[in-house]
Amino acid sequence: MAAAARLFRGAVRGPSTLILARALSSAPPGPAGRGGRRAALAAAGALGGLGLALGLWRRQTALAASREDEEDKELRQRFMAPPVSGLRELRRRRRELRSRMELLIMETQAEVCRALAALDPGASFSVDTWERKEGGGGISCVLQDGEVFEKAGVNVSVVSGLLSEEAARQMRSRGKSLKAKDGKLPFCAMGVSSVIHPKNPHVPTMHFNYRYFEIEEADGTKQWWFGGGTDLTPTYLNEEDAVHFHKTLKEACDKHDLKLYPKYKKWCDDYFYIKHRGERRGIGGIFFDDVDSPSKEEVFQFVKSCAKAVVPCYIPIVKKHRHDSFTPEEKLWQQLRRGRYVEFNLVYDRGTKFGLLTPGSRIESILMSLPLTARWEYMHTPPESSKEAEILEVLRNPKDWVH
Amino acid sequence: MAAAARLFRGAVRGPSTLILARALSSAPPGPAGRGGRRAALAAAGALGGLGLALGLWRRQTALAASREDEEDKELRQRFMAPPVSGLRELRRRRRELRSRMELLIMETQAEVCRALAALDPGASFSVDTWERKEGGGGISCVLQDGEVFEKAGVNVSVVSGLLSEEAARQMRSRGKSLKAKDGKLPFCAMGVSSVIHPKNPHVPTMHFNYRYFEIEEADGTKQWWFGGGTDLTPTYLNEEDAVHFHKTLKEACDKHDLKLYPKYKKWCDDYFYIKHRGERRGIGGIFFDDVDSPSKEEVFQFVKSCAKAVVPCYIPIVKKHRHDSFTPEEKLWQQLRRGRYVEFNLVYDRGTKFGLLTPGSRIESILMSLPLTARWEYMHTPPESSKEAEILEVLRNPKDWVH
Repeated sequence: MAAAARLFRGAVRGPSTLILARALSSAPPGPAGRGGRRAALAAAGALGGLGLALGLWRRQTALAASREDEEDKELRQRFMAPPVSGLRELRRRRRELRSRMELLIMETQAEVCRALAALDPGASFSVDTWERKEGGGGISCVLQDGEVFEKAGVNVSVVSGLLSEEAARQMRSRGKSLKAKDGKLPFCAMGVSSVIHPKNPHVPTMHFNYRYFEIEEADGTKQWWFGGGTDLTPTYLNEEDAVHFHKTLKEACDKHDLKLYPKYKKWCDDYFYIKHRGERRGIGGIFFDDVDSPSKEEVFQFVKSCAKAVVPCYIPIVKKHRHDSFTPEEKLWQQLRRGRYVEFNLVYDRGTKFGLLTPGSRIESILMSLPLTARWEYMHTPPESSKEAEILEVLRNPKDWVH
Repeated sequence: MAAAARLFRGAVRGPSTLILARALSSAPPGPAGRGGRRAALAAAGALGGLGLALGLWRRQTALAASREDEEDKELRQRFMAPPVSGLRELRRRRRELRSRMELLIMETQAEVCRALAALDPGASFSVDTWERKEGGGGISCVLQDGEVFEKAGVNVSVVSGLLSEEAARQMRSRGKSLKAKDGKLPFCAMGVSSVIHPKNPHVPTMHFNYRYFEIEEADGTKQWWFGGGTDLTPTYLNEEDAVHFHKTLKEACDKHDLKLYPKYKKWCDDYFYIKHRGERRGIGGIFFDDVDSPSKEEVFQFVKSCAKAVVPCYIPIVKKHRHDSFTPEEKLWQQLRRGRYVEFNLVYDRGTKFGLLTPGSRIESILMSLPLTARWEYMHTPPESSKEAEILEVLRNPKDWVH
């Protein structure tokens, strides 16, 4: 976290036109292109010094600096970086759902990053804040090649602008009929999205994503909906873990409506289906999309419960298995399952496809979901009655883990 | 080759309803499911023995066996496995272009497999012959985890049946207007397709594919066209290799029409474009599709020249670099480029998408193009003026290699 906090201060005080900075000390070794960013931050510091030297608006500067320090402190405690919409703006329109959702995704990002970093003390998250030319921006937190995690990414994005026809068509196919003005639709989309790939094949991969959309139609009507889900992809089946994971999600759902868990559990099994393999990506969890009833407030409260369930449903499983011993054969099977993960994400995942099609989207944040390493062997079939065949059976025929 | 020949005999004499066999001795270690096939072959042998014991049709059997032995010998010398349409059938309609193309793709497969196997003496190709329930079949030859090649696949398929509406729509989008009867179109598609991923980062990956389509419209009109190409994906740029590769392809094209190479070289650069990265997959070669002029015979002769150019354009490059020394950093960069290869194939490649959508297609043969291993690092950017930046520059701005 130290690296994140260090960058964080730099990013807050950096040039306001383009906040694009990187946690320098926690970046992976080797890559270049960092010299440029480092220089930009230094230049920003020099300009700040020049202003003070001129003695202009000294009082205002001092006042602003103290307010900034206070905000900075609050931000640092709560978030991984300053919110895209700015804390003051979020405070100003604190009753609006957009603001509450942006705070929720920021809090979720920080909560998850802290919980993961606590389990992998040698590693730290690199934090990138980025702006999108067409409107909005995001914060990408990535931990790479740690002791426990091979690659863990937790991404927040808050983007707005005009929806392209291609993207709008993709939404329409999901059951939304939208009347556009001149073929364009003003929209706002925000979400937190994460994929955690651990090193140990006995610690499962976990993915979650919670998002909110607003679209303005030609007549000024605002359409809104929520989507999201949390799902688990183990290399080997551990029934106890599967039950814990699903039970925690079920409890989060049951607080709102007993019908939600069974419905969204099935949706998850259906969504994460690798059709050409006849297998699911993992053992599921919950998944939902286009949810716009019973009311904005009620759906938001449900989404909040789901987001708060991420840490309790996953972190105990990581704690339990992170020191498990494993064989080279188990690592190999993990790599082959990673290959399937890549197949699902690049061939089927709507979020990835939507991202790759949206102009100005940040490719590194979208493809952060891909594992560090993956493997494809021709005609690999595990022996009958093996542990590998056991998980395949569940991926082919999903089970009910909670009754 | 020994393993292929051994299987080959087994496949010819196996049960005729479903020729699905595998070069048992050259299969990668570990996978199960082989016991079943082995048992099926043994059972087929036992049934044959039973027929002889009954003393029925002894003479006919002896005659048939001698003819079979002769054909078997010829097939073994020329091909990796018996042609999908059967040698007798191909001989019977030897003047038809379909037959000549099937022989060409079979010969190309054998030529390339033999040339590769000669460079990697420790390894051997596993040969799978498979049938497609809906019509046709194929022969997949794969060498995995050799000394020189990480994964080398050379695949032949000859399929026929009714084209699904989804597949037909994909063809129409490529400029073909097709009038279907009851929403279905009888079709025949055949091709040879190959991807060679070497281990040494100084030996480039190579891909080629030559294919022929026939579609019958509602009024009985037959549409036909050829497609194909050969392209190179190096991890590091070697200008001499790039020139040799392109020059060999240019010579093959120039024999037919001087306009072909420049046109198909550009088509290749445009086709293998990873849009979300702003990079090409490799340094190109030639690519063409939907080619149906000047005449069936002339296009076939052109395709033949291209197929015959595969070995001379690639094998000298493998010979030259297969013993080059390399560093762990060079291997790492290769793995990252393998990741891009996966991105192109799963997100953009029409052949892969078409295959994944076509019911009854053989997934293992389609995804044989994926490398054994790949890697994705978040925000990896090579240093300026490095060898890694040099190849990236060429992938971003394709060069003319032959003037």
